Amino acid sequence: MDYKYLHKISLPSELKKLTLEQKKEYALELRAYITQTSIKSGGHLASSLGAVEIAIALHSVLNSPQDKILWDVGHQAYAHKMMTGRVEGFENLRTDEGISGFPKPSESEHDAFIAGHASNALSVAVGLARASRLQNENRMIVCVVGDGALTGGLTLEALNDLGASNEKVIIILNDNDMSISKNVGGMSKYFTKLRIAPSYLNFKQKTRRVVSAIPFIGHGLFKFLDKIRRIFSTLVGTNKMFEQLGIRYYGPYDGHDLGNLTKMISQATSINGPVLLHVITKKGKGFEDAENNPSAYHGLAPLGEKSEQKFSDIVGETLCELAKNNDKICAITAAMAQGTGLESFGEAYNDRFFDVGIAEGHAVTLAGGLAKGGLKPFVCLYSSFLQRGYDQIIHDVAIDNLPVIFLIDRAGVVGADGVTHQGVFDLSYLFSIPNLTVLSPKDGDELKAMIEFATEFNAPLVIRYPKSYEKNYGFATEFEVGKWESFPFVEGFGEDSQERDCDYNKYILAVGNRMLKLATGTKGACIINARSVKPLDKELLTEIAKENTLIITLEDNALNGGFGNSVLVFYNKNNLIKRGMRIITLGLSDNFIHTHNIDKAFADNNLTKEYLQNIIDKH
Amino acid sequence: MDYKYLHKISLPSELKKLTLEQKKEYALELRAYITQTSIKSGGHLASSLGAVEIAIALHSVLNSPQDKILWDVGHQAYAHKMMTGRVEGFENLRTDEGISGFPKPSESEHDAFIAGHASNALSVAVGLARASRLQNENRMIVCVVGDGALTGGLTLEALNDLGASNEKVIIILNDNDMSISKNVGGMSKYFTKLRIAPSYLNFKQKTRRVVSAIPFIGHGLFKFLDKIRRIFSTLVGTNKMFEQLGIRYYGPYDGHDLGNLTKMISQATSINGPVLLHVITKKGKGFEDAENNPSAYHGLAPLGEKSEQKFSDIVGETLCELAKNNDKICAITAAMAQGTGLESFGEAYNDRFFDVGIAEGHAVTLAGGLAKGGLKPFVCLYSSFLQRGYDQIIHDVAIDNLPVIFLIDRAGVVGADGVTHQGVFDLSYLFSIPNLTVLSPKDGDELKAMIEFATEFNAPLVIRYPKSYEKNYGFATEFEVGKWESFPFVEGFGEDSQERDCDYNKYILAVGNRMLKLATGTKGACIINARSVKPLDKELLTEIAKENTLIITLEDNALNGGFGNSVLVFYNKNNLIKRGMRIITLGLSDNFIHTHNIDKAFADNNLTKEYLQNIIDKH
Repeated sequence: MDYKYLHKISLPSELKKLTLEQKKEYALELRAYITQTSIKSGGHLASSLGAVEIAIALHSVLNSPQDKILWDVGHQAYAHKMMTGRVEGFENLRTDEGISGFPKPSESEHDAFIAGHASNALSVAVGLARASRLQNENRMIVCVVGDGALTGGLTLEALNDLGASNEKVIIILNDNDMSISKNVGGMSKYFTKLRIAPSYLNFKQKTRRVVSAIPFIGHGLFKFLDKIRRIFSTLVGTNKMFEQLGIRYYGPYDGHDLGNLTKMISQATSINGPVLLHVITKKGKGFEDAENNPSAYHGLAPLGEKSEQKFSDIVGETLCELAKNNDKICAITAAMAQGTGLESFGEAYNDRFFDVGIAEGHAVTLAGGLAKGGLKPFVCLYSSFLQRGYDQIIHDVAIDNLPVIFLIDRAGVVGADGVTHQGVFDLSYLFSIPNLTVLSPKDGDELKAMIEFATEFNAPLVIRYPKSYEKNYGFATEFEVGKWESFPFVEGFGEDSQERDCDYNKYILAVGNRMLKLATGTKGACIINARSVKPLDKELLTEIAKENTLIITLEDNALNGGFGNSVLVFYNKNNLIKRGMRIITLGLSDNFIHTHNIDKAFADNNLTKEYLQNIIDKH
Repeated sequence: MDYKYLHKISLPSELKKLTLEQKKEYALELRAYITQTSIKSGGHLASSLGAVEIAIALHSVLNSPQDKILWDVGHQAYAHKMMTGRVEGFENLRTDEGISGFPKPSESEHDAFIAGHASNALSVAVGLARASRLQNENRMIVCVVGDGALTGGLTLEALNDLGASNEKVIIILNDNDMSISKNVGGMSKYFTKLRIAPSYLNFKQKTRRVVSAIPFIGHGLFKFLDKIRRIFSTLVGTNKMFEQLGIRYYGPYDGHDLGNLTKMISQATSINGPVLLHVITKKGKGFEDAENNPSAYHGLAPLGEKSEQKFSDIVGETLCELAKNNDKICAITAAMAQGTGLESFGEAYNDRFFDVGIAEGHAVTLAGGLAKGGLKPFVCLYSSFLQRGYDQIIHDVAIDNLPVIFLIDRAGVVGADGVTHQGVFDLSYLFSIPNLTVLSPKDGDELKAMIEFATEFNAPLVIRYPKSYEKNYGFATEFEVGKWESFPFVEGFGEDSQERDCDYNKYILAVGNRMLKLATGTKGACIINARSVKPLDKELLTEIAKENTLIITLEDNALNGGFGNSVLVFYNKNNLIKRGMRIITLGLSDNFIHTHNIDKAFADNNLTKEYLQNIIDKH
């Protein structure tokens, strides 16, 4: 495609100079470029395609960065990124050479706030609006909220505050009838009603006629529209929810009608107090494949990404298999059915499958209820999102020791998705919760064994693993809680490798498949699969604690509060640190991981074969 | 008072035998006994007085424990506790000899779920209802939800799920127009509208007339009522919110009219699907003082409790003082204005004070927004409730390194409130978050110094402390981040105590005033005020690391991931563990703390002067 505007517009002020028709052309260019790049480098294609007109309309009306635009969740923001100076970086989307896939203040002053986890925008907006008011800065605060983010408790808490406080915030409800996968819950049903309500088409038509018939007179026009709106809403009664909370509701509008959208946003800026514009968009708009199957195009992996095997496939297969003969088994996720491998389970056992939408707290407490009621719930979430259920794990699961099983995907460093999605805190925050057992499998077969074990286990259990693994290794010893196994699967050696190549004074204790893979190939140390993180294998630890022993721990988690530290604590507490014995803990240092490259993150933290070999050799 | 029924009724089946008039007498007795006991032993008087008729009505209709009753938050449940066999234990409410102040499954099979943190009930209810349906158990699931708990994101997430899934759950909305203190937010305004809506009185009267005129014919009656309700709701349009989410709404009803309440609940059991009965109660009903001032009677301290000085008073005074000359300072709490000391600030600086209701996640993210907008927000919460903002601390504050200050009250073991309220995880979950600085003051003066410092600090900062402290000690060295001070305030010694009584090979590193108090009086070791938990005082640690040094760490926090472990990790990492050097970490072991007695909790975990002295002497 020949781009006429794409590379010329690097500031909102340049966008403002275009005519409506030129902007429409620009929209086509943005769509083409987003599609082309996302297919190559991966990314959240569909949502960003749906929000192109919203981005253009917002930057046509507002004055960023004086005014603040918040995207919730941030992966709608590709068009916004490009019109704020990041066309070049977009080519290398989600890599260290390019730009982040989510808004990131350190990347641009036009990214008003971090936005990797859904449903924070409204809460942030209330804060920004208050700061602006108290400091007389007169900023416009706008947040673009997906209908999916509306099921999150944080959004709802903020709506409650906003409605009462009357802060000046414009909410663009970007309603594409999807969160990440198909939307769920009463809120979704409610929106469906809004969309099919007679007011939608009628009002849309009437609005247009009114808007085109009356000169553009700012506040006055909105007052007039307001009257019409009220008449309709009284008759139809569908948009009461927001009004009851004290937030003015306008819409629904066609989110791809750039002209009307721009006018509506412009009008909304003159309203004093919170206002919501309900905008209907089509996820994947303009890209046929994505339009027809937005779920598959929600997050694309880059072309050519090594196709390792996914742990999530094991989750789906194993749960389906076990559920055949065990009708207690049920599964819960929070808008991550595909990512956590539950789609097949959801189809086969629809009655026992609960996708609660973007609502991780509820996912955990719901599981507590199911377990208390005698079922066997598996909660399947990404590591960084489970952070939102932290209190619920303690209060609604662990205190009463309920047998809820957490299958935690995307644990450890995540790569492309970047800093907000790192799953590197779970071992730390889980380890200090009493009654929890925490496991990490070396491969798919071991995950399967752990899940099978979990169904018989009568207490809370966490199994954490990254997205993928290379291969199955077989078992040296059968899986058992609190028991590790030696890992005789070193490249180039047969089954007797332990005998031939192991200096029994040097040990690598590695958690999970990535760390085992890292250890594999090093010479001169025993490699141990530390699959039971809590409890530790105390017997083995005691056995290897001798004078001059070298113990290296490896974990794909923050060192603070993690696995290595708990090994050290065990030794110290039991006075087992013998003369000349050295415990070296390798893992992630006390910094947020901003790189989009997993190998680089590991290298930055000394998680390399060379570093490892060097330690072994030096001891 | 001469009790006719109180001691005779120990099972719901016995309650069921009483006539309505007898039940009303019983209600009076329950109120008298709750009042008498709470004033003596402390407790949540007002909310439990308001819910007496609800408890009687529920147990008259339902068949607990086959049916499940969930109280949200649990401190409404005193009457329920007494009619399920716990009159005797109630005399020693909130002590180890008596019963817990919150529902606790380990205490009684009639306590269906843990209920210390508000807003979990609905989420649990959905789980229990699903478990019952899938196992054909035909249980009734009822939750009694305070209007305060409705502002919590967890409740709202569950409402969304419940509305769509059509599970059979009865919600009794116990609307006393208060959460812990005066309710806040759009939701509260909405309820006010419901209460003053013409439908309330009219419908209440009509309902009564209808109910008394028509024979008790189960489902049919409700259908009839439903029609009336619809007519009213169409006209008044105020109860749409729940209906729009798919939950049938009935009410409001007088929550102290036992006869009508019982009938309504009975009728509700025949509805298939979620139903909400909106019930208006008076917090503190029947106890004049509490009725007139429910906030003061919300949580009573036991008579004769040692009146130490409160850290929260320092918070209030210091923030008010600083705010005079610094208009950036603002304060946020989540329905804990009184408990965290913010009432005076809220009065003096109403414009900069934000009580968001029971919504800790929003409290944290809102603060992120305020900080990003250039203000200086202080988030004031209890330690165990901050757990609900864990993800928000990471995602909305720490990643972008925003200068939000967390003043964390009720840190450490809490005593009477019991297991759900222990503030013993904060050091662990905070320590592993990058960019955070974590402090703990030795006394009120040091808290003041820390707060003053905080206003100039340009990164996230946490200050954690328990409810109270005995006295101010003075400063050995001025407060500074990353710097500890020796603590020459040992009883019976003058300023030169360090010189006279300190064996420089033995050190006690104590976090916070309670641990320093514990260390005080031990002989033969230097006591160090480890006020900067993160970062540690590395210089001091390095200096004292010598052959045969004994280092004892003391913390009122879980050992896992806590302060002592980080000291050990520092020494190990820097290879500073010298020959004969011993590091002993004392703190809370890996168990939930069920005792209601702080001293006992400490003793159970070797946190006694005797144990400490013994270690020192033996080394």
